[in-house]
Amino acid sequence: MQEKEAAILLIHCPDQKGIVATVTEFLHKNKGNIISLDQHVDTHDEVFFMRVKWDISDFLIPKEKIGEYFQTLIADSYEMNWQLSFATQKLKMAIFVSKMSHCLYDILSRFDGGELHVEIPVIVSNHIDLEHIAKKFNIPFEYIPITAENKAAQEEKELQLLKQYEIDFIVLARYMQILSNKIVAVYTHKVINIHHSFLPAFPGAKPYHSAYKRGVKLIGATSHYVTEDLDEGPIISQDVAHIDHRSTIQDLVRKGRDLEKIVLARAVYAHIRRKTLVYNNRTIVFE
Amino acid sequence: MQEKEAAILLIHCPDQKGIVATVTEFLHKNKGNIISLDQHVDTHDEVFFMRVKWDISDFLIPKEKIGEYFQTLIADSYEMNWQLSFATQKLKMAIFVSKMSHCLYDILSRFDGGELHVEIPVIVSNHIDLEHIAKKFNIPFEYIPITAENKAAQEEKELQLLKQYEIDFIVLARYMQILSNKIVAVYTHKVINIHHSFLPAFPGAKPYHSAYKRGVKLIGATSHYVTEDLDEGPIISQDVAHIDHRSTIQDLVRKGRDLEKIVLARAVYAHIRRKTLVYNNRTIVFE
Amino acid sequence: MQEKEAAILLIHCPDQKGIVATVTEFLHKNKGNIISLDQHVDTHDEVFFMRVKWDISDFLIPKEKIGEYFQTLIADSYEMNWQLSFATQKLKMAIFVSKMSHCLYDILSRFDGGELHVEIPVIVSNHIDLEHIAKKFNIPFEYIPITAENKAAQEEKELQLLKQYEIDFIVLARYMQILSNKIVAVYTHKVINIHHSFLPAFPGAKPYHSAYKRGVKLIGATSHYVTEDLDEGPIISQDVAHIDHRSTIQDLVRKGRDLEKIVLARAVYAHIRRKTLVYNNRTIVFE
Amino acid sequence: MQEKEAAILLIHCPDQKGIVATVTEFLHKNKGNIISLDQHVDTHDEVFFMRVKWDISDFLIPKEKIGEYFQTLIADSYEMNWQLSFATQKLKMAIFVSKMSHCLYDILSRFDGGELHVEIPVIVSNHIDLEHIAKKFNIPFEYIPITAENKAAQEEKELQLLKQYEIDFIVLARYMQILSNKIVAVYTHKVINIHHSFLPAFPGAKPYHSAYKRGVKLIGATSHYVTEDLDEGPIISQDVAHIDHRSTIQDLVRKGRDLEKIVLARAVYAHIRRKTLVYNNRTIVFE
Repeated sequence: MQEKEAAILLIHCPDQKGIVATVTEFLHKNKGNIISLDQHVDTHDEVFFMRVKWDISDFLIPKEKIGEYFQTLIADSYEMNWQLSFATQKLKMAIFVSKMSHCLYDILSRFDGGELHVEIPVIVSNHIDLEHIAKKFNIPFEYIPITAENKAAQEEKELQLLKQYEIDFIVLARYMQILSNKIVAVYTHKVINIHHSFLPAFPGAKPYHSAYKRGVKLIGATSHYVTEDLDEGPIISQDVAHIDHRSTIQDLVRKGRDLEKIVLARAVYAHIRRKTLVYNNRTIVFE
Repeated sequence: MQEKEAAILLIHCPDQKGIVATVTEFLHKNKGNIISLDQHVDTHDEVFFMRVKWDISDFLIPKEKIGEYFQTLIADSYEMNWQLSFATQKLKMAIFVSKMSHCLYDILSRFDGGELHVEIPVIVSNHIDLEHIAKKFNIPFEYIPITAENKAAQEEKELQLLKQYEIDFIVLARYMQILSNKIVAVYTHKVINIHHSFLPAFPGAKPYHSAYKRGVKLIGATSHYVTEDLDEGPIISQDVAHIDHRSTIQDLVRKGRDLEKIVLARAVYAHIRRKTLVYNNRTIVFE
Repeated sequence: MQEKEAAILLIHCPDQKGIVATVTEFLHKNKGNIISLDQHVDTHDEVFFMRVKWDISDFLIPKEKIGEYFQTLIADSYEMNWQLSFATQKLKMAIFVSKMSHCLYDILSRFDGGELHVEIPVIVSNHIDLEHIAKKFNIPFEYIPITAENKAAQEEKELQLLKQYEIDFIVLARYMQILSNKIVAVYTHKVINIHHSFLPAFPGAKPYHSAYKRGVKLIGATSHYVTEDLDEGPIISQDVAHIDHRSTIQDLVRKGRDLEKIVLARAVYAHIRRKTLVYNNRTIVFE
Repeated sequence: MQEKEAAILLIHCPDQKGIVATVTEFLHKNKGNIISLDQHVDTHDEVFFMRVKWDISDFLIPKEKIGEYFQTLIADSYEMNWQLSFATQKLKMAIFVSKMSHCLYDILSRFDGGELHVEIPVIVSNHIDLEHIAKKFNIPFEYIPITAENKAAQEEKELQLLKQYEIDFIVLARYMQILSNKIVAVYTHKVINIHHSFLPAFPGAKPYHSAYKRGVKLIGATSHYVTEDLDEGPIISQDVAHIDHRSTIQDLVRKGRDLEKIVLARAVYAHIRRKTLVYNNRTIVFE
């Protein structure tokens, strides 16, 4: 999908009167035409959130100065946290996989079909199994096997690779290793994982087996940002499918694959379009 | 649910630069604290839509003057259509029914449970069957039987009743008569109907029979504002349920009842909270 | 809904060859016409399950002898557990409530509309709040307040009431007391509860608050048979609804009510129609 | 997925007493162990349907004689229509595509991941665009461009190709040509199409545009067997996704892609596992 140039601002700050008026006035006065605006007030925590996207073709402030001006003229007085990005700028996404191919295929087929405005410089894996898929799509495949003994060293290597490829964010497409805190710390709220259950139900390993055993009538999948606490990170998207007593564990695994790939793709899409904002371990996903 | 006083403004107008800035500046300058703000631009038709709700406890413009000031200071120059209402003001809702009780019971039980901030001065029916339910809830029940011969005269009587009870909007809770254009014209976008199919599939009579015959794998329900064209009015809410080859027509009817009552209730709730705006036979439903 | 006379047999036993042939041959030879037949093999535990419903109008074995003949001729040799019931026989259902009315209203409106082939001899509550609803529907309301001190005595009273009203099964329609093991033991797999989360997520008190705090993107409801372990009983039905960051806890509570009443009603309907079979803390729900 | 050898029998016939007993007795007597059995009675049309799968490792009748014996001993007297197949036998599936890649990628990634027990000897297309995908998966790609003038001749060529590749059934994975009746007649209930709406709503071209214009609140997809009447064939699977006023036509197209690929895959999976039976333009899909 072709993107027209536009600026995107994600903001959160303590809730106060007049924020929307101030920000929109700033854009309007400087000849920025608002394309979309979403705001949300967390009345519980009294925090204000906003995402605004505007056409900068006539904007009086030059692209590279917008951040500085915004900080000085507005953000300072409202104690704002903000991120500025531009619609045409392609983020660089690394994909981590292990042995299961469905999420990887799904992401790459979306990429190939033009759905994802992104670059994919590298696929990283602790197994060699999916190398043939990377080859099909002409994407470098880095095989980094991990054992209990070499884990620290290998993750160091991964960090170097991520740096070398200038990776902006990471997608764990059924990567069956727990990422060390070292990588997570570098990529805070920039590692997206897919977990094969409707969290917080069935965290950890083998959730389909646990779901079968518990006799639930629906299975789920959860995409979330990775934090130091396993399966506890801020949730981006979730979905479920109905099952019944006739479903075997193999059926759960098979039906679950469809959930996993769709729910992961929704998170990746939202992240790429800068629609997500994390606050207090919860994710605002602007539509 | 207790409502705190607040003003709600629903706006649509040709899309132009600076609308959000102008409206929020107007509210801010006059000490109105925004509680929620939603805007939407229909880029296809180039129309701007907005719903804004603000606390008027410190608002400088007196409640009864807000409309006049807004018209003069803002609406005129932007060619705005707008509706102003107040959160504490209870709309008066008439319910029309025939013989089926599930939607009526559902609405009344929500009302009784405090979910609907509304008054229900009257239930109108062309059959006597559900009078006992009106009695249970102590609501006047007007029995107005309709035949091909007396239809015009009886609808005249209905109109007088609606006037007498000062009805703001009408809910057709499985009312099995087509409302004449005369009533629809008085209550434009103020009559909510529930149709027992996922429109535009299966309009008209006996949609469950048609659904069964066609062998669809899901059934649906659609709530919409009533217009002169039967089952063609702007849709407010829709939902579906999965069925399979084992489902008999009776099963469809039974499962459909749950869809109907839930989908109708969503529309009624959105309407009461002034979250809906009709444009070009489509309904904006602000969340 | 009018029920025609028919026998319903629910069976489970160790999986063996020829069970279906033997049972259907038994029915066929004795001029029983099969109306529906569902069978399921749990290949994991090697257990066979079956539900068969047959027209007994020409059946050679008299109604009151069917159980004895089936035991002697078939069940003994296959080590079957079985329950026999008859379609026209109305079960007697007690409803337990506390202060929230939505599930109670929903059940009673289905009952009043003829959807539930059941008798409701009594509504039991530990609060007086919903007495007016029982009165609306002319159902005896037993107010049995419970404190930490009087719990044992009051439950004894409840047990006597259940006996006196000849109750077959109990529906906890948002009853906010934990039933003692004494009652559960008498009504094994005959007490249906609705829990306001997608179990096993958020067991215990205040699940909507926990859901909000965790930032999940969907909320759920679970109907299950009550066992000694709180919120651990065999699940009958589950469903979920999507929410987003804009949903307040109050929104979750409101949206959750619709889930709760629908999911509870599905369980009650399946139980009444003898479509459920519990094995190994999992519920077979024949469609 | 590895398949163990088993026979699968799909039956339909006028409903009569004793069918289940007769068929299961036949299997049992000849030492066939039933793996799964599903039966359904269409009480409206008085037709009996059955799918039974049994282990033939000890079956007394040799594999190649089962059909003959079944016809003589049972089918004749019950006027049965039946199809016999074997679980290990791989069907040969042709995929027809045009320019959109998402359904093709989805099928091929499932195939590559081992989910589909099938052979894919050829991909046919009226455009050259997706040849690179066929190449990625090493599947022959037959480019057969079609114009108004050459349509008859080109379809003749297609028929020859299908014969040459010994194709058992065809999947139209967003193939944007109407198949002629000639091909449909050869492959009766063996051509699966995906239509990008919840049929019968929005048949024909550009359903997402029509959906947008009508202002529906959900979009859908329908997989069905192709018959002579366009978009009127027996439905196999359907699903929907919620949209709202913010969704542009491009959003509908994007969200629709996920529906299309999942709903098509469900139909393909059911067909491959011989779980479908068409009767009276409705599809029985045994679970």
